[in-house]
Amino acid sequence: MAAMKLPLLTQRGATLRYDRDQGIVFVLDRRLYPHETQFVACPDLEAVAMAITTMIVQGGPPLAYVAGYGLALVARQKRQATVAQQREALTQATAKLRQTRPTADDLANLLAAAETLFETALRNGEDLEQTLVTFVDAQVAEGDRVAEACGRNAATLLPDGANILTHCFAGAALNWMLYTAFVEQKKQIQLYPNETRPYLQGARLTAHQAHEIGVKVTLLTDNMAGFCFSRGMFTHYITAADRIALDGSIANKVGTYQYAVLAARHNVPFYVLGYDGPDFKTLTGADIPIEERDPEEVLSLAGKRIAPQGIDAYYPAFDVTPPELISKIITEKGIFLPSAMATYDKTGSLPVSQQKL
Amino acid sequence: MAAMKLPLLTQRGATLRYDRDQGIVFVLDRRLYPHETQFVACPDLEAVAMAITTMIVQGGPPLAYVAGYGLALVARQKRQATVAQQREALTQATAKLRQTRPTADDLANLLAAAETLFETALRNGEDLEQTLVTFVDAQVAEGDRVAEACGRNAATLLPDGANILTHCFAGAALNWMLYTAFVEQKKQIQLYPNETRPYLQGARLTAHQAHEIGVKVTLLTDNMAGFCFSRGMFTHYITAADRIALDGSIANKVGTYQYAVLAARHNVPFYVLGYDGPDFKTLTGADIPIEERDPEEVLSLAGKRIAPQGIDAYYPAFDVTPPELISKIITEKGIFLPSAMATYDKTGSLPVSQQKL
Repeated sequence: MAAMKLPLLTQRGATLRYDRDQGIVFVLDRRLYPHETQFVACPDLEAVAMAITTMIVQGGPPLAYVAGYGLALVARQKRQATVAQQREALTQATAKLRQTRPTADDLANLLAAAETLFETALRNGEDLEQTLVTFVDAQVAEGDRVAEACGRNAATLLPDGANILTHCFAGAALNWMLYTAFVEQKKQIQLYPNETRPYLQGARLTAHQAHEIGVKVTLLTDNMAGFCFSRGMFTHYITAADRIALDGSIANKVGTYQYAVLAARHNVPFYVLGYDGPDFKTLTGADIPIEERDPEEVLSLAGKRIAPQGIDAYYPAFDVTPPELISKIITEKGIFLPSAMATYDKTGSLPVSQQKL
Repeated sequence: MAAMKLPLLTQRGATLRYDRDQGIVFVLDRRLYPHETQFVACPDLEAVAMAITTMIVQGGPPLAYVAGYGLALVARQKRQATVAQQREALTQATAKLRQTRPTADDLANLLAAAETLFETALRNGEDLEQTLVTFVDAQVAEGDRVAEACGRNAATLLPDGANILTHCFAGAALNWMLYTAFVEQKKQIQLYPNETRPYLQGARLTAHQAHEIGVKVTLLTDNMAGFCFSRGMFTHYITAADRIALDGSIANKVGTYQYAVLAARHNVPFYVLGYDGPDFKTLTGADIPIEERDPEEVLSLAGKRIAPQGIDAYYPAFDVTPPELISKIITEKGIFLPSAMATYDKTGSLPVSQQKL
């Protein structure tokens, strides 16, 4: 019978934490989870940046929170320095963190807000470390609230008997969607995660979280969805988005696009868990930078070389899906057609009147 | 600089062999190659069947040859038995081998020919073992000739600068195509193999063979082709087929279909290395049985469990691509539109007049 609990990755605060006493950021190692539940201690900016680039922490919001805590570490380290030195250190740290991962918008947005914040705090002579930690803590809480609202909105779209293809790990909103639909609404839904090479987030994170919630999970390799679509096995295809452009394009884990093409061919709706909506600085999908990672991550698997010596590999970490392949973008503020993405109201956190479906 | 040699998997006779002195079939372990070049000794029918089902030998023609040698082992074992006992043992062995892998047509066709052969040999009191070994040896030689002709025909279609996506290992004809185009015709072609989970034939066999020929190889995981298509990185998509139906549908390694859908969307031609053409007993793609293999092979990777306990997996080993997604089917007898597949002339081995492109 179903375990019926909300698993670990639902609450981001349970996976990352700023230890005020020691001045250390503790981060769940998502490369090992769920095989091992191990927290990495990051005592300085370099360790934080490394945790982000090496994917110890993954997912747009979680890695943005860790970056924010990284700024607090810098503020702590420079607390005896002059205001000018503090400003310089924080500005450099912000620039360094901004470059760790370019595709998701959460990081850039959190860092921009943090910059405004520490500038004011510097001018007012506030405790910089405390100001930044308080800010990021609030961001984590707000992010968790957004994830729950988004996931609960998504659950309303799922009929009893839905068979859902998903790719990578769609984050806390996915957990909330599954929990709401399966545990609260008692809909018999099933989840088919693609394993999501090279990091296997689907085989590890998604499979584990859904199984803990009690949903039946059937794992696929990344080349099987086409066959399953052709056999009519899926009623829905659902992923998250690392960034949503105003034209309704989304960037998400590489592979998202190819399954969207298949979903469209087989008349299966593609829903995007859009959390807090579009990035208003990104007009179109073509404006989203696609991170290319170290090809070594493709040539090896779990530390073991799988390819012969002498060959190259290519590792684009994300791809862009155009709006015509997306059925609905589900956010904390409601459900949008991709074409209506620019009408999203970023002001205020209460639901606002908007074009709902 | 290019190694410019024909690699091991080009000649099937170098990867499998019937040892007349010992009564043993030696088979290259394709699960380990190229990391290890190890031959498995199969002393009886059970070992041969196991080598096929566990994918020690893979690919429609190679596994059919090994099955044929397996019949010779049975004949050897029963050489002192009565004709009735020999007939019964061979008939049972044929039935057992036929069920090892259902999708490719080579196995069923070779076994059907072997049945006719051993029936005649039994009636004429011939040396059954010798008759079967001679027959399979000739099949291997003929298969190698077909692969070379098919590969050379394919090379004529490749322009200088072709960037080719491929899936799984398209066999000896792929080697001949690459060798002819790159080494003999000096066309600067590049190959992008999908790694092809769960067995990683693309990352191992295809990458290794192409690299030995000297072709530049860039490995992709199975979820990246869509992004690469969207960036215009491929000029051609080329795979083999485990079975070709008369309607021009093909069955091939699972994943072939989804990349064909992407190729069509991005106006990239999809060429099928069709070796000796269609199976005349298979009218449509829907008539091709799709083998489902042990889900355990998806849940683990190189012997290591990658998924959490308690979840299921699904492993369809092949998929079907409909003719409208295929540009050309390249055979030893020339190049066909899928719609003209039924005009293929199976009689005779010399090129015949037919609808060529």
